Amino acid sequence: MSSLDLKWKVLFSVSVIVNFTCIVLVILHSETTHLSWTRKTATEAEKVASISCSGHGRAYLDGLVLREDGKPICECNACFTGPDCSLFKPSCAVDVDSGNPMFLEPFWKQNAGSSGVMVAGWHRMGYEFEDGSLISKQLESVIHKLHETVGNANTSNKYIVFGVGSTQLLNAAVYALSHHNSNSSPTKVVASAPYYPVYKSQTELLDSKKYKFSGDTSSWKNKTRSSRTNFIEFVTCPNNPDGHLNKAVLQGKFARHVYDLAYYWPHYTAIPSPMDEDLMLFTLSKLTGHAGSRFGWAIVKDKDVYERMVEYIDLNTYGIPRETQLRALKLLNVVLQGDRREIFRFAHTIMKTRWEKLAEMLSTSKRFSMEQLPSQHCAFSKQVRPTSPAFAWLKCEAEEDEECHNVLREANIIGRKGAVFGVENRYVRLSVVNSRDDFDLLLQRLQDLVSKHLSIVDAVMSL
Amino acid sequence: MSSLDLKWKVLFSVSVIVNFTCIVLVILHSETTHLSWTRKTATEAEKVASISCSGHGRAYLDGLVLREDGKPICECNACFTGPDCSLFKPSCAVDVDSGNPMFLEPFWKQNAGSSGVMVAGWHRMGYEFEDGSLISKQLESVIHKLHETVGNANTSNKYIVFGVGSTQLLNAAVYALSHHNSNSSPTKVVASAPYYPVYKSQTELLDSKKYKFSGDTSSWKNKTRSSRTNFIEFVTCPNNPDGHLNKAVLQGKFARHVYDLAYYWPHYTAIPSPMDEDLMLFTLSKLTGHAGSRFGWAIVKDKDVYERMVEYIDLNTYGIPRETQLRALKLLNVVLQGDRREIFRFAHTIMKTRWEKLAEMLSTSKRFSMEQLPSQHCAFSKQVRPTSPAFAWLKCEAEEDEECHNVLREANIIGRKGAVFGVENRYVRLSVVNSRDDFDLLLQRLQDLVSKHLSIVDAVMSL
Repeated sequence: MSSLDLKWKVLFSVSVIVNFTCIVLVILHSETTHLSWTRKTATEAEKVASISCSGHGRAYLDGLVLREDGKPICECNACFTGPDCSLFKPSCAVDVDSGNPMFLEPFWKQNAGSSGVMVAGWHRMGYEFEDGSLISKQLESVIHKLHETVGNANTSNKYIVFGVGSTQLLNAAVYALSHHNSNSSPTKVVASAPYYPVYKSQTELLDSKKYKFSGDTSSWKNKTRSSRTNFIEFVTCPNNPDGHLNKAVLQGKFARHVYDLAYYWPHYTAIPSPMDEDLMLFTLSKLTGHAGSRFGWAIVKDKDVYERMVEYIDLNTYGIPRETQLRALKLLNVVLQGDRREIFRFAHTIMKTRWEKLAEMLSTSKRFSMEQLPSQHCAFSKQVRPTSPAFAWLKCEAEEDEECHNVLREANIIGRKGAVFGVENRYVRLSVVNSRDDFDLLLQRLQDLVSKHLSIVDAVMSL
Repeated sequence: MSSLDLKWKVLFSVSVIVNFTCIVLVILHSETTHLSWTRKTATEAEKVASISCSGHGRAYLDGLVLREDGKPICECNACFTGPDCSLFKPSCAVDVDSGNPMFLEPFWKQNAGSSGVMVAGWHRMGYEFEDGSLISKQLESVIHKLHETVGNANTSNKYIVFGVGSTQLLNAAVYALSHHNSNSSPTKVVASAPYYPVYKSQTELLDSKKYKFSGDTSSWKNKTRSSRTNFIEFVTCPNNPDGHLNKAVLQGKFARHVYDLAYYWPHYTAIPSPMDEDLMLFTLSKLTGHAGSRFGWAIVKDKDVYERMVEYIDLNTYGIPRETQLRALKLLNVVLQGDRREIFRFAHTIMKTRWEKLAEMLSTSKRFSMEQLPSQHCAFSKQVRPTSPAFAWLKCEAEEDEECHNVLREANIIGRKGAVFGVENRYVRLSVVNSRDDFDLLLQRLQDLVSKHLSIVDAVMSL
C-alpha cells in the first residue's frame, strides 16, 4: 500500500467516524425533539418570552401588536416607558394603591420550564368533570397537600369549594351562612375596622333581603348575646390593611365567622399553628402571585354550608374555568416540588428585605409612623419571625396631615386612604408586594419625603 | 495515482459529501427545533394527547393518574368504559339532559396545531391589563371582527363586557337594568315559557329587593302600558329549549330587554340579518364548544348600563381569568382563519345530518312529535336553510304519556322535563349537541322506542 493510499484510507476512516457520530446525533436529536402539534405554539411562546423589555416590563402572547414584525409590544412597569421599557419617567407617580403581587414574578421566570402549561384546543370542553362536579379532583388533592406542608390550615374532614378568586367566595359564604336565617330581620354582616372594603361593597351590591352590611364589628360586641339577630363576622388574619393577626370578636350561637386567610402564608407572617375554623378562604393571588388567574378556594366544615356555597357558584358562573384549574394545578405542583420550601424562601427573603428597608427609613421620621407588630414563632420555618405584611399601614402624625394620602400624593406616591377601610384618613395603605421597580421607587419617594421633613425640622430648630 | 488510491479518494469524497449534508441537517434541525423552557411542557402535552381511548374518550393533562407509568387515565364518553374506553355498556342510559357541546371536539383535534396555547408561568400575573381594565383589548377586537364576519350582531358603537360564561352576565344585566328603578316595587324579570331555567333560579338566588322573577312573559303582555312597573324581559333567540326565533313581547318605556343570543350562530339557525338590540349576550360554549372555559360576552349600547355591568363583574369576581381570555383569543383567531367559514361548515354539516336523521326517524311515529320550524334565508351562507337547533323539544302525544321524560327514561334516555322550563311535562328537551357517541345512542334508543310502539299498534290493528 502506498503512503498516498494510506493517507486516503485514514481520511476516509475519520470521515466515516464523523458520519457515524453525525447520524447518531440526528437520530437522537429527532427522537428527543420530536414535537408535532405543540411545536408552533411552543415556538410562538418562546419568541414572545424572548422579547427584551430591559427588566422593567414584559411582552405577553395576547399583548398589543403594533410593529410590522407581528411581535407584541413591551408592557412596562409603572414609571418606565419606551419600546423596550428602558426610559424612566422621573416625575411619574408610583402606584401602590393595589396589592398587585408582582414581587413573585421573578420566581416564575426562574421556574419557567416546570410552570408553563400547554392547553390543547380540545382540553376539557365539556361543562362538567367526569364525576359530574365542577372541580378538578387533582387540584383539590394538591390543595390538601399544600396546607399539610405549610401547616397553615387543617383541611382534614373538610370540604373544598373553588371560586373565581376568593372574591367570588366572600359572597358565596355570606349567601350560605345567611340562608337558614328564619328571622324577619336580615343577617348582619360585619368586619373589624380597618377592614377590606370588598366585604362591604359586595354585600351591598345586590341589596338582598337576607343579609345587610352593618359596619364595624366592635359596635356589636356586646349585643350578640342579648339580641336574636344573626351575625356573619369576617375575620381577616393577617388583616388587610394593617397586618394584625385578627381573632373573632363576636361569640354565641347567633355568630358565624368567615376567616379570610388570603395572607396567612409564610411570606407575610409567622405561622404559629394551623387554623382550624369552620369556614376559611384562601387565594392563589397572595400565595403564588397569580392575581390575574382569579382562583380561590374555601375550606368548609359543615356539609350544609358547603352545599349552599356550591349552589351559589353553580348559579353564579357554573364553576371556574377549566384552563384556570389546570394552570393552578401546575403552579401548585411547582410550589410542592423539591423540598417544598423554595417559593416560601424566595417570597420571605424579598418581603423581609423590603420591610427592613422600610422600617429603617421610617425609624428617623416623626411625621410618619407604623405600628410595630410582634414577632412570633413560625412552625413552618422553625424560627421566631417578625411579620412582613403585604401592606404598610402608614399613619401621618402631624396634626395638619389629616388627609395622609394627599401628603403622599404630593410626593408622587398613590396610596389608598383610610376611609376606604372604614377608618380616618390619617391612615393610608401602601402595597409592599408590587414589582421591584414599584417598591424601589416607593422607598426612594418616602425617603425624600422623610429627609425633606427632617431638614425642615432641623432648619426650624436652628433658628 | 494507483487505482486503489483513486478508490479511497472517491470513497473519501462521497463520505465528505455525506458529512456535509449531515452537518447541514444537524444545524437546520437544531435551528428549527430549538426550544428551551417550553420543551418539557410541550412534550408532556403530546404524551397525554397520544394516549389512545379508542375514539370513545380522551385523556387530559389534569386527569386522574392511577397507573404506574404516571399517565392520566382515559375519561370515556357515557356508556363506554374500560382502560381505553373500548367497552360498550349496553344497558347504560344515554344522558342528553345537558347541552354539552362536544360535537365540536373533533374540529379542535383537527386544528390542534393552531388552537393550543402555551401559558407561561409568569403570564399576566397582575390584577389588571396595562390600561387598568380587566379585559383584553385584543380579544375585544376579535369579537367585533367575528360578529362582522358572521353578520349575527351589530357591534358598532357598542360596548363589550366579558363574563365568566354568559351565566354571569345574565345577573349582571338584571342588576344593571334594575338599578335605576326608583319605584317601590321591585323590577319584574320575565321570560317566555318554555324558558331557560337559569333566568329564574339566578334571579331568585340572592333575594334582592331590586328585582323579582315574575314568570312567563305572556301573563304581563297587556299590563306593561297601564302599570308603572319596570320589566326586564329575557328574549332567547333561538329559544332554549324549543328553537323558536323569539321576539320581544313587552313594549313601552317600562320594558327593557336582554337578548340571549347563545344559539344565534349558523350552526343552529339561518342568520337572516344582524341583531341590533340594546343588550345582547353571547357565549363561547355554543360557538366553539368550549363550555368548560366559562367565557361569555355582552354587547351593550347604553353607557350607563355598560358601566353598571362592569361594576357587577368587578365586585363579583374581579373580572375573568387571564388564561381564559388568552385561550378564547386563540380559539377565535382559529374561527377567523382562512376563509373564516371552516368551523361554521363543520358545525352546520354535523347538525344538519343529525336533524335529518332525527326527523326521518320520528316521521313514522304517532307517539312523539316535534314542531316543524320554518326554513329561512341565511345571509351568512347565502342559502335558504332549515333550522338545526341545539335541542330536540319532543312532545309525547299519547294521552297517558303525561310524564314524557319517564317514558324516555324507561327506554334509557335521560332528558330534561318540561316543568323545568315552565311548561307541562308532556314536553321533554333532548340535547343534539353532545358527542357522536351520545347522539348515535340517542337515535338508536329513540328508534327502538318508535319501532316498538309501531309494532304494538300493528299488532292491535291486526286483531
